[in-house]
Parts: sequence; structure tokens; C-alpha cells
Amino acid sequence: MTIGPGTDPHPLGVAVVGYSFMGKAHSDAWRNVNSFFPTPRVTQKVLVGRDAAQVSSAARHYGWSESATDWRQVLERDDIHIVDVCTPGHLHAEITIAALEAGKHVLVEKPLANTVEEAKHMAAAAQKARERGVHSMVAFNYRRIPALALARKMIQEGRLGEVRQIRASYLQDWLADADAPMTWRLRREAAGSGALGDLASHAADQIQFLSGSAVTSVSGTVNTFVKTRTGPHGPEEVTVDDAAWATLRLASGAVASLEVSRFATGRKNALEIEVFGSVGSVAFNLERLNELRFFDAGAHGESQGFSTILVTDPTHPYLDAWWPAGHMLGWDSTFTNQAADFLSAIGSGNAPSPSFEDGLSVQKVLAAIESSAAQASAAVVL
Amino acid sequence: MTIGPGTDPHPLGVAVVGYSFMGKAHSDAWRNVNSFFPTPRVTQKVLVGRDAAQVSSAARHYGWSESATDWRQVLERDDIHIVDVCTPGHLHAEITIAALEAGKHVLVEKPLANTVEEAKHMAAAAQKARERGVHSMVAFNYRRIPALALARKMIQEGRLGEVRQIRASYLQDWLADADAPMTWRLRREAAGSGALGDLASHAADQIQFLSGSAVTSVSGTVNTFVKTRTGPHGPEEVTVDDAAWATLRLASGAVASLEVSRFATGRKNALEIEVFGSVGSVAFNLERLNELRFFDAGAHGESQGFSTILVTDPTHPYLDAWWPAGHMLGWDSTFTNQAADFLSAIGSGNAPSPSFEDGLSVQKVLAAIESSAAQASAAVVL
Amino acid sequence: MTIGPGTDPHPLGVAVVGYSFMGKAHSDAWRNVNSFFPTPRVTQKVLVGRDAAQVSSAARHYGWSESATDWRQVLERDDIHIVDVCTPGHLHAEITIAALEAGKHVLVEKPLANTVEEAKHMAAAAQKARERGVHSMVAFNYRRIPALALARKMIQEGRLGEVRQIRASYLQDWLADADAPMTWRLRREAAGSGALGDLASHAADQIQFLSGSAVTSVSGTVNTFVKTRTGPHGPEEVTVDDAAWATLRLASGAVASLEVSRFATGRKNALEIEVFGSVGSVAFNLERLNELRFFDAGAHGESQGFSTILVTDPTHPYLDAWWPAGHMLGWDSTFTNQAADFLSAIGSGNAPSPSFEDGLSVQKVLAAIESSAAQASAAVVL
Amino acid sequence: MTIGPGTDPHPLGVAVVGYSFMGKAHSDAWRNVNSFFPTPRVTQKVLVGRDAAQVSSAARHYGWSESATDWRQVLERDDIHIVDVCTPGHLHAEITIAALEAGKHVLVEKPLANTVEEAKHMAAAAQKARERGVHSMVAFNYRRIPALALARKMIQEGRLGEVRQIRASYLQDWLADADAPMTWRLRREAAGSGALGDLASHAADQIQFLSGSAVTSVSGTVNTFVKTRTGPHGPEEVTVDDAAWATLRLASGAVASLEVSRFATGRKNALEIEVFGSVGSVAFNLERLNELRFFDAGAHGESQGFSTILVTDPTHPYLDAWWPAGHMLGWDSTFTNQAADFLSAIGSGNAPSPSFEDGLSVQKVLAAIESSAAQASAAVVL
Repeated sequence: MTIGPGTDPHPLGVAVVGYSFMGKAHSDAWRNVNSFFPTPRVTQKVLVGRDAAQVSSAARHYGWSESATDWRQVLERDDIHIVDVCTPGHLHAEITIAALEAGKHVLVEKPLANTVEEAKHMAAAAQKARERGVHSMVAFNYRRIPALALARKMIQEGRLGEVRQIRASYLQDWLADADAPMTWRLRREAAGSGALGDLASHAADQIQFLSGSAVTSVSGTVNTFVKTRTGPHGPEEVTVDDAAWATLRLASGAVASLEVSRFATGRKNALEIEVFGSVGSVAFNLERLNELRFFDAGAHGESQGFSTILVTDPTHPYLDAWWPAGHMLGWDSTFTNQAADFLSAIGSGNAPSPSFEDGLSVQKVLAAIESSAAQASAAVVL
Repeated sequence: MTIGPGTDPHPLGVAVVGYSFMGKAHSDAWRNVNSFFPTPRVTQKVLVGRDAAQVSSAARHYGWSESATDWRQVLERDDIHIVDVCTPGHLHAEITIAALEAGKHVLVEKPLANTVEEAKHMAAAAQKARERGVHSMVAFNYRRIPALALARKMIQEGRLGEVRQIRASYLQDWLADADAPMTWRLRREAAGSGALGDLASHAADQIQFLSGSAVTSVSGTVNTFVKTRTGPHGPEEVTVDDAAWATLRLASGAVASLEVSRFATGRKNALEIEVFGSVGSVAFNLERLNELRFFDAGAHGESQGFSTILVTDPTHPYLDAWWPAGHMLGWDSTFTNQAADFLSAIGSGNAPSPSFEDGLSVQKVLAAIESSAAQASAAVVL
Repeated sequence: MTIGPGTDPHPLGVAVVGYSFMGKAHSDAWRNVNSFFPTPRVTQKVLVGRDAAQVSSAARHYGWSESATDWRQVLERDDIHIVDVCTPGHLHAEITIAALEAGKHVLVEKPLANTVEEAKHMAAAAQKARERGVHSMVAFNYRRIPALALARKMIQEGRLGEVRQIRASYLQDWLADADAPMTWRLRREAAGSGALGDLASHAADQIQFLSGSAVTSVSGTVNTFVKTRTGPHGPEEVTVDDAAWATLRLASGAVASLEVSRFATGRKNALEIEVFGSVGSVAFNLERLNELRFFDAGAHGESQGFSTILVTDPTHPYLDAWWPAGHMLGWDSTFTNQAADFLSAIGSGNAPSPSFEDGLSVQKVLAAIESSAAQASAAVVL
Repeated sequence: MTIGPGTDPHPLGVAVVGYSFMGKAHSDAWRNVNSFFPTPRVTQKVLVGRDAAQVSSAARHYGWSESATDWRQVLERDDIHIVDVCTPGHLHAEITIAALEAGKHVLVEKPLANTVEEAKHMAAAAQKARERGVHSMVAFNYRRIPALALARKMIQEGRLGEVRQIRASYLQDWLADADAPMTWRLRREAAGSGALGDLASHAADQIQFLSGSAVTSVSGTVNTFVKTRTGPHGPEEVTVDDAAWATLRLASGAVASLEVSRFATGRKNALEIEVFGSVGSVAFNLERLNELRFFDAGAHGESQGFSTILVTDPTHPYLDAWWPAGHMLGWDSTFTNQAADFLSAIGSGNAPSPSFEDGLSVQKVLAAIESSAAQASAAVVL
């Protein structure tokens, strides 16, 4: 019996723009999502990139039927229903807005844009498209970590009581070596910012996602520890932050701290989040992504303590699609879960989440941190 | 530019026999291996199972071009080069031997067989096939966990010195509830054994794999905690072990302990291994599969301690194929790594490892544990 | 206002025999017990040892009023009510029996004796003394770790359900270096045994203490990894075990595993105990002695996991005598707790626990392990 | 042979003022210091408190020869050489200055005082006294945790390279319950501040102690989550902070974050400190006070990871005075170590550390945090 995607008369055609780290991760998601989730079916149509040879090779490896170098041509095709934007941040706005106008559903990597201005235009375009049934979503993939999705569910169900204090940090160490070379990521004009845009965007999104409350004011500090690095053309000034700190007040009355760094020697990919409520708390570390620690102040007195929940049970978010209890998921599963959520929303006609408005709101928090840092940390109201 | 597997003139055609838990995991590996590893290319030809409707649905979801119900017909096809056997254990010998005789490379799930007798026939068939350039491998996928592959590498390089003491346990809890129903897995005639075949096979393989030394004698104990369970036809005797314990002497002079259980309340999938050598030691837990703990007795005195190595660096085994440092792999990645190793061996013409002889040797250890247990734990020499 | 022990008309006079490691630890307990616990008051009368100069110096440092070299003379004094025996094991029986006959309450270090024969005589003497109101106790101080006392309480209250499987190990590494010198501890005639008497005694006592059930049969294995070591007189044969393994069946139907070693590189003082019951389990590690891990199979499904209980709350065993919640206790506190329990029993007239019968029962388990090991691990019934 | 303190012709007489929590902890130190450390000998002369009956009972339990209610009379006695001030903070200045003027060596609990003004007077008095050979020290006892003393030693030896980023938090949860009653600790006039003085004082001291660098500017935020609590006289406003946050710049160029709270549900006594340097880092948690985690960026590439050092080896700070390797110390040991350091300094004639100047410097940091918080977190320069 011959089968295959052909048996589904209308699979959704997908195009991914960008083929490096994020392009590889998103390709993995599109290749696998239908094997795990009962969503609308997709077909991997085309991978788009600037270098014809490289994008062709990437396309062949990552399961795409074709490669292309001109994203505008791809937008004109009728067999493409979804455009997934994995380019550097400064290209997000242009491609995304064009794709939405062409009637394509759009998934765009985080951060939504390099500036608040661009993010506003994108949110406006998304709003218009939504009215025509065209969907958009920003790829804060860590919302799709089962442990963090569980944390949000427990918070929403009231198991922590009133959320009061949040600690979010994202620590890496790839710049700790002062002899590491200059790269475009350390130039403000190219990268927008340093740890702030790259790492604090995830942390700020989680603060708002988990608490369900918006940031209302911010006091921030940024620092560049190594001020000059050597590139191919000799020594050059580093013009972005190496680390950033902020204290955030939320509409609910909660207070959050945020700390991000590329200088935290020994920490490889440590997004850590703690949420303290009136009757419980949770703690998470991306370096142990299948675990959520939970403290229940209402538990039997003598046996109270932080429980390490192995978030691999079929009753946990996303897990019924995967393996039996006790079988760990990897970082890449978050992209598969994300693709599934996006496809389910498209299938049901509901707006997917997080929206471009959510992405814009994170952008505003990051801008406020920079602005506060520029005025000796004096608080900035959003 | 149109691309795809078609650009490789001779991709290897794969058939998987079995479509439940292991069939799903192996399908995942074949679907993804070429996206990560530079091995010979494969194409997912056919998924084989007894129930036509179910196997057809599974094939569609897991990326197969076709499904089939008669594995003998599949063995006759010229476009099938690899047969991957994921059936229950009592069918391994028949399918595997026929496939080898048909000139197919064979990958077979662990344990190799339900009895030593069957395993011996399979090893003999593999030996004959090898002489004709036909390869075979038994799927002890935990050898492909990067942390355990690193442990073996470090042991082989002498970083632990002389290995003396090994502790291996594999603890689960899905039978801890005495009211859990009777299943075929708890009947000796169907399952062969209980925790012994299912869990101790992995533990025994790791003991020999990590130490590089063979088990020479065994003292064993088995126990059935809940002796009767209720099935669809009423109460029924449980005829397999719920848990097993053994002390193993190795040819090198090392001593290993082994403990497996389906009654370890709270432990979901806890394969734990500790290896103590004269100048160092390592410890691993499958519930934290990206970590290896390492103690170096030669380190600076005041700062000695167990290091928690995050085994996600491109310099670690298998990792250069995956993501940047700090990005966790899941349990499913072990099957992808395994497929890559099998394909690389086929491509290079070298015999893949672990061989059927390795699988047979594990089978003998399990049989010796049962035999010792039947004589009040008196040691049995292998 | 002048105060002090003089205000209590009848403090109990204490003599400790032995002034090295255990003598120091027991002195610490007698010096501090009245500062924490509302027990009968004691006064540190005399420290006894063979070397007059050394015992005098030790007495001065550890808070004793006097030192002495002849324990027989001390037994004749009316102002000594308690004799605490901290000598090497081969002297336990003689001193203890004489002290009991002299009407002194006796606390004796574990293991109770070097042989089952001696232990039987001691238990008989304790029985006779008890009839005259003279008390005795064996110093299994780890029963006084709050976390393990809590574990026992929870097990007795049924929070684990039926106890089925126990894992006890005690791992150290001070002999891992093959060049470590010969000592009296490695000679059978002096030390009785190796890791077995020293480490397995604690583990075996905990198995019976926590489960509340007696060992009924034993399969054992022992091993000496380094068979010759060099002492002051040249190379010499090591005549005790370096490590030991056993599988123990209990009267309740539970099965326990036991593993002890002085070759576990990196493990300094790792007494680890896991108890798996039908509805819960606990886990403990002496290297984190203020923590007990607890899994409650009856907890809310999605948030089940091992809780790390910080056993420092005033509601936990022994803790109301110490510091506010969150303030860690040290290893030495177990001796203070032990002295308090002994004094409370004396004060109330109840027999203290663990009794010499308990000590004898541990001795029998150790002897059975050796006996089984001598017959190729064949099980020995107690 | 009769012995005892009498054999030392000139033991130093000690008086402790205050007999509650800190009085109990300091008494424990004076009772035990000579049993462990080869310092000048002390004798526990007098415990001072306002309530005659209570202080008499405490004195009897804690090993003191006498009790007294008038600290001024105690200062006149020739047999008192050391005065140890454990009263509430607002009494520190008066007692301490009088004791120094009376020629007594003074140990005073942290924080040094409730205000910068008082602390300045105390530091001036200490300076004058020092010229006369009279010593003083502020009791930041966490400097005497072996793990933190080791961290400082490693930092001073350059094993972390240049210190860049420090994270210090001190989290407790005893106010998380909004129904917890009003106490004097929540009134500004009595307590000075909330979490700031109580918890941030330790954290700020550690930041300067570990880095060896002074804080130069501060941005701070404080918050009171529960603004009204009910006391014996009905509802009352809480006038101190429940939690505080700060970002601190150090003279060396390093940046530190600080977060303290009494609302961190589940955290009992969690002083956590991380120090990130250019070639290494350390991490500590008071809830596991015998452990220090260390990352060595210069270690063998494939086995890099955070080592968990069990800081119980005789080669570690303070440990040669205590027990063999692997035997845990408790929280109370930090006071014994502190008393030993103070006595050693007195014996050698060197100024003990931390000095009142060190205490004053912490006081200034706390004041700057409050001041910054009062101006919307704008940075305050010290």
C-alpha cells in the first residue's frame, strides 16, 4: 500500500527563510511535527537563503524539496501557506510584513525586531492580516518547554496563590575569555544589543508569560566587561552590553529581577526562573529542561520541600504526543511543540500565541532597560 | 532548484518491522539521521506490522512511503537494504536470521532474544553473513548516550585508572501499584522474564561496555512482590520477576553489583551507573542524560570533587552533529546516533558494534542470574 | 548570682573510656547535651585511656575534670553513674560487662563486639542488669540523624505503605590509593573485619531500624582489591575485606541490598539509604545529612516528584532543641541527640534503644554475610 | 589526676550580653572553642540579660558560672577580658563603646549598628582602643564557613582570575503567609529596616569579603508586599521592607547583584553566592553549607564542569580542628570558628578581622540602597 503526504489532499506548504542555527532547528520541527502531533499536515517545500550552494546543501540535509535565494519569489507561490522567518533580526520586519501582505501565515524568530519602531509596524501588519484570517506568531520557543508550560498552568490554576516575586536569569559564558575574537554580534549597528536582545528577551517574555501580568516600570544597568576585542582588522571597540541587570515592577504588584550575561564562567545555557507565590513556588533551569521544582506550602508540614517533578508524564503539557513517562525530551522538542501549536491554531482558526503584540511588549521592556541604564538606573515607566 | 533524496543515486532502503513504542523510536531515527550526520543516505521505504490499518496509519505519521503486513515479502525486495527488527523478543530470531540470509543488513532491538539458545543461532547467522559483507548490530541504544560514550572513552584513556567497582541499577515504578492489571509482560511464556530481560539487559551491557571486561561469575536473586494480578479473565499468577539483584565478578578482577526493579516508587526511568577506578570515578543517571559526573583523584587537593559535566559540547561524542554547547539532547537522540553508527559501519565496511556476540554475552549473564537465583544465590560460573 | 551544675543536687557522673576519634565525639556530646535538651543533668567526671600524658591532655581539652588510666578503678567510684565505652572493639565485652555488674549504665560504641560470641555475652549481661534498673545502649548514632528519625516515623505512620525494597550502601575511598600503607585495621586478628564491621554495621542496623523487620537470610560476597600493602616492616598481606555486597531477605517479605566499600573513589562518607514502599519512598545520603528526599505516590498527579525536605524544622525529630528552621546541624549533633535519648531513658526508667540485642542482631547479619561469602554466596538463613 | 581550666593560670574571662538566639549560639562557641582549637583558653564567666530569672536559667543551661542583669557592673570587673555583645542592634553602640573604654576586647553581632552614625562612633572608639591593645571585631560569622573561607582563598590565589560578576541573594520565607502576625521586627523605629539590615548585611559583607573590593555605587529597590498585619492591638502598618534588590558597582570594575527576601516561599535560609571570574567561578548555598561548587575553565576540555567540593577535608580552612574528612559541620560551627579567630588574634596581638570599619562599610552600602530606592532607584555613589 503506497501512502505518504499525498494522501492528505491539502497539506500546508512551508517555506523557511534562513538556514543557519535557527533554520536548522525550525527545519527539524517541520520535518517531525506530523509524526508526533495530530495537527494539520505540512509539507517541507522550500528553504530560502542568500548563498545558493550553501542553502541547497542545507535543504538537502534538512528534508526540503527545494531551495531558493529570493524570498520575494517564494511569497508569490500559491503552494506556500506558511513562511517561517529565521533570518538575522534586522531583516524580520521587511520579510514578515511582505509575507503577511501576501496572505501567508508567519512564524518569526525572537526577538521580534531590533527596534521598538520595527516591532510596532509588524504588530500593526499582523493585526490587519488577522482580520483577513492570516495568522502570525513570534517564536518564544521556551514557552513550549513542558516544564514551563506546566509552571504557567499551575500558576493559572492558583497553586502558587498570589505571585509576588520572580527571579529570572539567563547566564552563558562564551565571552568570558577576553581573547575571544571580535564578531558582528558585538557591534551595535549589526546586533542592536548584546546579552539584552539575545538573552533578556527570553527572560522578559517568561516573566510576563508566567505571571500573566505586564511590566510597568524598569530600573536597569548594563555593562561591558571587555571593551576591546581583536578582529580580522585589528583591535576594535565592543559596542554592545556583555551583561545586564534589571528590577521590574509588574501591574499585579509583583516585582521581578532579571540578570543576563555572556560572562558567567561555567554556565552554558542557564535560563533560570523562580516564581514565588503566597502559597507555593516553582523553579526551573534550562540546563535541566525536563525538571520543574515545586514547593507547596499547603503540603503536610513535616514533609514539605521542593519537589523535583520529572515533566515527562503523559498528563504533562505536550507529553502525550511523545514517549512514555521517564523518557527525556531535548531542546529541539520545543520547536516541534511550537510548530504544533502554530498549526493547531491555524487549523482551528484561533489566533496563535504569543502574538506580535507580545513580541512588541518584550521589545519595550528591553528598550526601557537600556534607557534606564543610560540615566544611572533611574526607573523608567512603560 | 529541485533537490531531495533523489540526488543521491543509491540511498539505502530501510524497512522497520514493528510499529509500536520501539517502531516509533526507530522511525524517528531513520527520518532524521541524514539531517544531522554525514553518513550514507537512507530512504524510509516500508513499515511492517500485523494489523494492516494500524501499520498504515503509523507509516503515514512516521514518514514511511509504504506499509506492509508480511515481512517475508519485504525480504524479497531489492530496494530494501536494511531491516530493523522492533518486534517482541520471541520473533527476533526468525525474522533476523531470514533477513541476514536474504542479504539484508540487520539492526535488532535488545535483548537479542528471549533465550540463550535463540541468541546463539542468531550470532552464528550473523557470523556467516559478515563473511558475505552483510552487517548486523544489536540495539543497545544507551551505548549512544553521549555521556556514557564519554565515560567509556575516559575509561579507555585511563582517566579512571584500574576499574575496580561498578554499580549498575535500573529502577522503574510502573508496577508499584498492586492493583495494576495483569498483562502479557507478566507471563513467563510470553515475556521470557520480567525486570531481568527488560532492564538488566541494559545494565549488564553497560557493565561490560564501560569496563571492557567480561562477566565471569554471577550470584543472583529474583523476587516477585505482587504474586497475583487481575486481568480480563480474573485473577492470574504473575510468573516473572518484579525485581532482581546480582553480584558479578569480571575477568579483570573488578566486581559489579546490579539491581533492577519495577517497584521503585518514584523512579521513572532511572538507569544509574557508577564506575570506581584507582584514580577516578564516573557516575550517570538516565533521568539526567546530558550529565556525567566525574571525580579526578589527581586534581588539585583542595578543589577535588565530583564535576558535573554537561555533555553537550561539540568535543563530546556525537555532539558535533547536533546543536551548540548547552543545548540538551533528548532520549530519542540515542536512536539517531545509533542509526548513524550503523550506517557509518555499513559505509566503511567495518563490523558495527555491539555485535550479536555482544548481545549473546548479555543473554548469558541474564540466564546465569536466573540460574543462580534458582539455587539460593550460589554463584554460577559463565 | 552563682550558678552551675552545683545547683542540681544529683547530676549523673560520666566516665568515657577511650579518647581518640570516638572519645572526642562522645566528649562533645556530654559537654553539650544539657545546653540543648531538658534531660537529667550530667557532669563530665573522668576520661580514661592507657597513655597517661595523652589522656590527660585530651581530658583538659574536652572538658573533663580528671583523667585516669585504669578503667577498673573508675568502676569502683560511687560518683560515676554512666560508663561510655569508646575503645577498640575487642575490649568492648570485658569493660562493658564489668561496668554493668558494677551497676553503671553503659553506652557502648558500635559495632557491639568483634564476634557474635562476645555480643551474646554482652546481651546476656545487659538483660540481667536491666532487671536491676541498670541500662545499656549500643551507639548506632545514625539512628539520631533527624532525617533518618523522620524517615522511620513516616514509615511507621504508613506514609510509604508496605515496605518492599531497600537499598543501603556506605561508600568511602580512603583505601583507593594502592600505595596507602598497611595498618592494624587491615589485619583480621586486630580489626575482626574490614568494611563489613566498620560500614556494613551501620547499613544493616538502618535496614532493620527503618523497616522494623528482621533479616532472615543473607547472600554475601566480599572482596579484597589490594592484597598486599607495605607497613613499617615491609610488605604484608591484607587479611580483611575492602568491600562487601549482600542481598538480604526480611521477615516482612521485603528485600534489601547492601554494598560497602573503602575503594569508592570520590565518596568520602556516603551512607546512602533508599526505602521503596507501595505508596511512597524515601532516600537519604549522609553527605547531605540535613536532607530527606520523599516521594508521595498519592500526591497530585501532575506535581508528583521527590521532595527534598530540609529536616531543620522544629516539628522534625530532635530539632526543637536546636536552632530555628533552616539552620543546618553537623555530624556531631548525632552524638548529642544520642546522649539526650540515653539520659531521657535513664530518667524515665525505660529501656533505651537500640539495645544490646539490637547490636547482637546486626552482628549476626555481618557474620552471615561472611559465612555466605565463604561458600560462593549461597544464602545463609539466620 | 585533677585537671581543668585551673591548670591554665590565666584563662580569659568572657561575658556575653544577650541570651536569646544569638546569645545561645555564642555561648555554644565559648563552651566549645578550646575543645577544638589551640587558642588562648577562656572561661565562661557571666551571661548578662535584663530578666533575672530568664538569664539565670539560660546561664545554667549554656555553661556559664554566673548570670547578671547590669552590664555596667560587669564592665568594672577585672576577671572579665572579653565582652561579647548579642543584644538588639539599637543597644550595640552604647555597650560596645563603654566596654572598649573599660579596656575589654569586644565582639559584637552584626549588623554593627542600626545607623551609619552609630557605626561611625563605634569605629572611632575601636580605633582608639586598638592603639591601647584592645581588640574589636564584628561577628559576620558566615566568613567562618569553611566553604566561603575556601572560596576567598581560591579567589585570592587567582584561581578565578579577574572577578567580574557576583550574584548574592539571601532568601527566606517566614513572612510569606499574609496572616503571620505583626511583630517589633516589622516596625521601623525598632528594627531599623527589614530584610535589608537582617539579610542584606550578610550578602553585602560577602560581596566585599570575597572580591576584596569595595562597593562604589548602588542602585536599589525595596518593597513591602503585605502592608498591614494584625498584632495584639489590631491591624498595624508594616513600616519596613519585605524584600530588597540592588545592583552594586565595585572599585575593581566588577558588578554585583543582590536580592533579599522574607517572602521566598520554600526557601528557609538560602544565602546563595556566585562569583564569576575570567578563568573560574564558585557557587555556594547556605542550605548546603559543607559544599562549594567550583568551575575551572582551565581544566581538561572534555571533563570541564562544576565540581562539588565537599569542604570537610583537613586541608580546608578550619577543618583540621574538627573531624576526619567526610564528616559534616553544622551552622553552629561557624561561631566556634569565629571565637577561635578572635582569640587567636588577641593571643597574637594582631587586629582581628572583620573590623568595625568593615562593619561600617556594610552599613553604608545598606544606607545607600535605601537612599537609592527612595529616589526611584537612581544610583547613589558611596
